[in-house]
Amino acid sequence: MSQIPSTKQQLFQVAKAVCVVAGLSFAFMSTSHAQDKPSGKRSIAEQYIQDMKEGKISEAGDDDHVVQELIIKRSIPITYKYINILMNTPNAFGPGVACTTCHNSNDPSKSYRGLDLSTCKGIIEGSTEKPKRALFTPGTEAKRDILIRRLRNNRMPLGQGFEQSTYTPNHMMVKQWIADGAKNDDNFKKNVLPLFTTANAFGPDTPACTACHMSNQEPPSFHELDMSSHAGIMLGADSVAKGVDKATKVIVAGSPEKSFIWQHLSEDRMPPGISPAEPRDHPNTTILAAWIKQGAKCD
Amino acid sequence: MSQIPSTKQQLFQVAKAVCVVAGLSFAFMSTSHAQDKPSGKRSIAEQYIQDMKEGKISEAGDDDHVVQELIIKRSIPITYKYINILMNTPNAFGPGVACTTCHNSNDPSKSYRGLDLSTCKGIIEGSTEKPKRALFTPGTEAKRDILIRRLRNNRMPLGQGFEQSTYTPNHMMVKQWIADGAKNDDNFKKNVLPLFTTANAFGPDTPACTACHMSNQEPPSFHELDMSSHAGIMLGADSVAKGVDKATKVIVAGSPEKSFIWQHLSEDRMPPGISPAEPRDHPNTTILAAWIKQGAKCD
Amino acid sequence: MSQIPSTKQQLFQVAKAVCVVAGLSFAFMSTSHAQDKPSGKRSIAEQYIQDMKEGKISEAGDDDHVVQELIIKRSIPITYKYINILMNTPNAFGPGVACTTCHNSNDPSKSYRGLDLSTCKGIIEGSTEKPKRALFTPGTEAKRDILIRRLRNNRMPLGQGFEQSTYTPNHMMVKQWIADGAKNDDNFKKNVLPLFTTANAFGPDTPACTACHMSNQEPPSFHELDMSSHAGIMLGADSVAKGVDKATKVIVAGSPEKSFIWQHLSEDRMPPGISPAEPRDHPNTTILAAWIKQGAKCD
Repeated sequence: MSQIPSTKQQLFQVAKAVCVVAGLSFAFMSTSHAQDKPSGKRSIAEQYIQDMKEGKISEAGDDDHVVQELIIKRSIPITYKYINILMNTPNAFGPGVACTTCHNSNDPSKSYRGLDLSTCKGIIEGSTEKPKRALFTPGTEAKRDILIRRLRNNRMPLGQGFEQSTYTPNHMMVKQWIADGAKNDDNFKKNVLPLFTTANAFGPDTPACTACHMSNQEPPSFHELDMSSHAGIMLGADSVAKGVDKATKVIVAGSPEKSFIWQHLSEDRMPPGISPAEPRDHPNTTILAAWIKQGAKCD
Repeated sequence: MSQIPSTKQQLFQVAKAVCVVAGLSFAFMSTSHAQDKPSGKRSIAEQYIQDMKEGKISEAGDDDHVVQELIIKRSIPITYKYINILMNTPNAFGPGVACTTCHNSNDPSKSYRGLDLSTCKGIIEGSTEKPKRALFTPGTEAKRDILIRRLRNNRMPLGQGFEQSTYTPNHMMVKQWIADGAKNDDNFKKNVLPLFTTANAFGPDTPACTACHMSNQEPPSFHELDMSSHAGIMLGADSVAKGVDKATKVIVAGSPEKSFIWQHLSEDRMPPGISPAEPRDHPNTTILAAWIKQGAKCD
Repeated sequence: MSQIPSTKQQLFQVAKAVCVVAGLSFAFMSTSHAQDKPSGKRSIAEQYIQDMKEGKISEAGDDDHVVQELIIKRSIPITYKYINILMNTPNAFGPGVACTTCHNSNDPSKSYRGLDLSTCKGIIEGSTEKPKRALFTPGTEAKRDILIRRLRNNRMPLGQGFEQSTYTPNHMMVKQWIADGAKNDDNFKKNVLPLFTTANAFGPDTPACTACHMSNQEPPSFHELDMSSHAGIMLGADSVAKGVDKATKVIVAGSPEKSFIWQHLSEDRMPPGISPAEPRDHPNTTILAAWIKQGAKCD
């Protein structure tokens, strides 16, 4: 399909040369009302057209590329009305029942964690069962907050269902190690590190952490994360891409709940049962995060 | 990925032994508020965690496993609000238009069977066109009632579209035989049984019933159903799994409408056009049945 | 599965013969209330059953076959309530965010083209940003109108994302040629025709128009459209199937916006990012067009 006979190629070159010149005079004929406005006065459609003409729209890539380019980068306001639809609609963040089937009341005997995602107030209030917990901070980046985390992050190691316990002795061993300061001590060397380097440590038929996170080089190591040594774990993720000083810390010594390693070991991705193969950056997850960053307004 | 070098294996064994002991002292640090409560006082989240710790959550399997474990087994109330969303939303029970595109009024000239699925009253009232018919009995198991049946059961034989008639002479032959008492008489032997054992009897390019239901052994016979003889048909399905006395009857002599065989021959699965390969136990179908069993409440 | 032993075949033939006779007497036992009514008095369910019995329902084929047979052909009223759901629900017309994420206000600084698809008034009003434009004419066939076009038509040439400019000099060359009368002059021969016959003319890694539209014969030429000559282009699409006089014109000389060729070159399919492999005749797109043809009523 893409082979061009040489004579056509020549015509093509001529045509392009002509077009470049012709383009100058054609420019005014299309959306000319957008051309002379300062960008602050342009509508989002005009700005989009201008960016498209100038090749400023990034190449397709991530699953949320469309949302990033057309909505997020242009600060289109996300309405609560749409957030409400996402919370109540099956398959909104990937195949599965709606969020509100399990989280639709602040009564913990009827709704998991006393979490009511069926109202704006309930979303902002978060889990009302002890320990009470907000799901995010309105007006801030929410990617690492629990609401978005639960929709994005696959439980590690990959391959286990929500029915597998996250309270095994091995899980508790890691949690306690972080709580105790995440030190490079004998306990770490003898008891903790082997859990990261051994298959089936956190669930049946699961790979070792180091099967995917074995060095600071990606590929083959996902997120440039090295879980084969204390130094690698404390260095964190993306140390090459971001630089050592700006690498993403995966351990917050003393705080398992704030440590990405513990979050990944203990939190199931929602909706429950979703395949890890489903896009993590689902367009609607990105929209939900944008609503939060825009202030999580209810009107 | 799952190969473990022997030295690591040893470390792993040690680690696990340590962890089992350690686990005892770690137990109190996580959700300790749940530990001492009698199960009746636990929140559903606490009960879930307890079950997970004790390995009481079944292994993933059926398509509605998530819903069974997290919602049905824990008696989470299903709201009409969610049922209303399911009735009005495309793709709610598998790929297809919303139920209410065809069933949204009690006027039989505008809505199939005068069935209004757009209101709670309409769902409970059922088909208002003669013959009037409720779709289920609130408060009871609904798996065999028509609303759930239509969403779960593939029309038999597999492979024919909704456009193929269910009123052919062969269909009528089976219906009349059941209406007349489903006897093992000459009419059955000469006219009815051959329809079950012959390809293309109920539609073009369709297998014989006995291609899939040929004995009481599964595999190869689906549902342990033997349609190759009068005795097999009257015995019913799952006679090995459930025992002969508790086998599922597929014929109610004198009542074609109550006979599973006739239901399967004459009812198209909804939404129309859905592939038989789509999960029969769709999570939202299971939720709809649970709402009915909980009493089909409208508030 | 479809092999029939000869003795069974004989039984089958007998059974069928018996059934045909038996069918006459059986007919009254099922939906007999439908049999004697003139078709105008039948409910849609009765009419459907009658059509099914008479084999008047077309064989499954197109993606919207179900909707065509059960809804469109029977003039079931489409409610604005359902249209509103389609506009607000993710994945309603294929995988993607809801229409209203980008089109939910008549403020062009917040909503692309000042288009508000979140209200019935807004849908009917269309784009309020200059140039103002209605999306369809209520009560008329809408397949070629912009609302349906945007949901159905893949941008040509296939394979480029919405981020690729539709304002390149080559695009402008074609637009100007149509605006100037689409003549078979030197400009066409030297500058325009080569764009249609050359790969990568309208975007990187895209085939020539003539790779798929090379003659009046389908196959191999899609839509029997020949873009390899001025005569072929002016003849239009489907000239064999419809006849030369009724072929679908792809050029309206002087009006690029009305010319299918320009529409296909310049309009991205919605939702943005949708794969060209997704069904063009999505059931819900057909329903949306039917709502328009029925008058686009808001109540």
